[in-house]
Amino acid sequence: MHGENLREFILKANKAITSGDVNLKDLPGSCGRLDLVCRCVSSAFFLSHDLRRDTVFYSVHYGNPNPPVALKFVGSELKRVSPDERSIAIFIKKALEKEHLSVWKESTSGIYHAKKEFRDIILERKKEGKQIFYLHKNGVPIEDLINPSNCKKDIVFVLGDHIGIGEEDEKFLDEIGAERVSISPLELHANQCIVIVHNILDKIKCTYFSNSVS
Amino acid sequence: MHGENLREFILKANKAITSGDVNLKDLPGSCGRLDLVCRCVSSAFFLSHDLRRDTVFYSVHYGNPNPPVALKFVGSELKRVSPDERSIAIFIKKALEKEHLSVWKESTSGIYHAKKEFRDIILERKKEGKQIFYLHKNGVPIEDLINPSNCKKDIVFVLGDHIGIGEEDEKFLDEIGAERVSISPLELHANQCIVIVHNILDKIKCTYFSNSVS
Ligand SMILES: C[S@@+](CC[C@H](N)C(=O)[O-])C[C@H]1O[C@@H](n2cnc3c(N)ncnc32)[C@H](O)[C@@H]1O
Ligand SMILES: C[S@@+](CC[C@H](N)C(=O)[O-])C[C@H]1O[C@@H](n2cnc3c(N)ncnc32)[C@H](O)[C@@H]1O
Repeated sequence: MHGENLREFILKANKAITSGDVNLKDLPGSCGRLDLVCRCVSSAFFLSHDLRRDTVFYSVHYGNPNPPVALKFVGSELKRVSPDERSIAIFIKKALEKEHLSVWKESTSGIYHAKKEFRDIILERKKEGKQIFYLHKNGVPIEDLINPSNCKKDIVFVLGDHIGIGEEDEKFLDEIGAERVSISPLELHANQCIVIVHNILDKIKCTYFSNSVS
Repeated sequence: MHGENLREFILKANKAITSGDVNLKDLPGSCGRLDLVCRCVSSAFFLSHDLRRDTVFYSVHYGNPNPPVALKFVGSELKRVSPDERSIAIFIKKALEKEHLSVWKESTSGIYHAKKEFRDIILERKKEGKQIFYLHKNGVPIEDLINPSNCKKDIVFVLGDHIGIGEEDEKFLDEIGAERVSISPLELHANQCIVIVHNILDKIKCTYFSNSVS
């Protein structure tokens, strides 16, 4: 998958814990739905016996005790991670235990942490000239927006946790021109959205490569 | 979702544990990829703040010490289950601890267990007149097989774990006329396949209901 365009996902995790006090027996409760963050990592990267090296996943935590803390997972650099929630949570715990600076620092292979806001991470991508999509049930159907030609560029998807991203951040996304894109008539979990977005892009790319006319 | 057609998934879990000795700290290893079974349950049933009541999921375990043990999860009856792997594993542990008979017995609300073979569960569905699809990367693209009219019937999808279902069971599925259906150009995890199948059926049904011509 070298030299291909990137797929980036940015999750707002409103309640996710911001210290290393991760109780592996209670990811949903005392860790603020850290289980969901773990499933998003699993959905973002894992293929059968392979990893999606063309994907980057950000999770921005706004839970106690020290928000925000941002985590970045880089598919091309990940090592020794398994797709189950508990093993991903152990890597997240290690990253959360560190001291967070305004710049990214590596915790374990391919997993970075920083004191960064959700909006700043989105703006950084925007400044790099990337197209930002906001995943929203009532958006434009993804099939109407993404096609083999715009799919050749890097592409960024923003999404919320069980609470959503909130009105203020929705307004912010409108202001920076992020398009709302829908992937289902039903309201799904964030990790399921990531699986579906990957699948739609995989199928478009496949069509694109097999019919060499663009 | 009452009165709708059922969506059924049958997973062959080649190594999944067949006793209640479930180590919640080691679902992938000593429990024979029970993490994957848990993620399949999560993908089969959970919507944002809702459950898919039109879905039934079967997991047939062939791991030690006492294979086979079949589990059945009935969406319309499930209660108190959360989407995280650990909490699903706790319910599975309870079901695996019971004595398994040749008929289904309920363990907790909506979760049943029995001493049944993978093939017998498939044959039972077949005898009920249901259409059986075998999920396979090299099958016919799902969009070419499933459409608003055959989607009005109950529909059964068979799938494998990290090992697949094996040659013998593939031959069996061919013999009973199960069609091979593909959902991606890539080899995915079983739980990801379930998310994608649901999404494709959700979108078809949506189109079907919104254009009332069939
Ligand atoms: C569990 S949902 C959020 C539910 C929350 N109560 C709300 O109303 O925003 C998690 C996230 O998944 C994304 N999402 C859920 N369903 C979607 C759909 N059908 N299409 C596109 N994105 C969706 C959205 O980004 C949403 O914030
Ligand atoms: C991890 S895969 C199995 C890999 C195994 N090594 C094999 O070759 O069968 C798990 C299951 O997901 C289903 N599956 C995976 N990718 C698929 C695809 N692209 N289309 C349809 N089903 C797929 C198949 O049922 C498969 O047995």
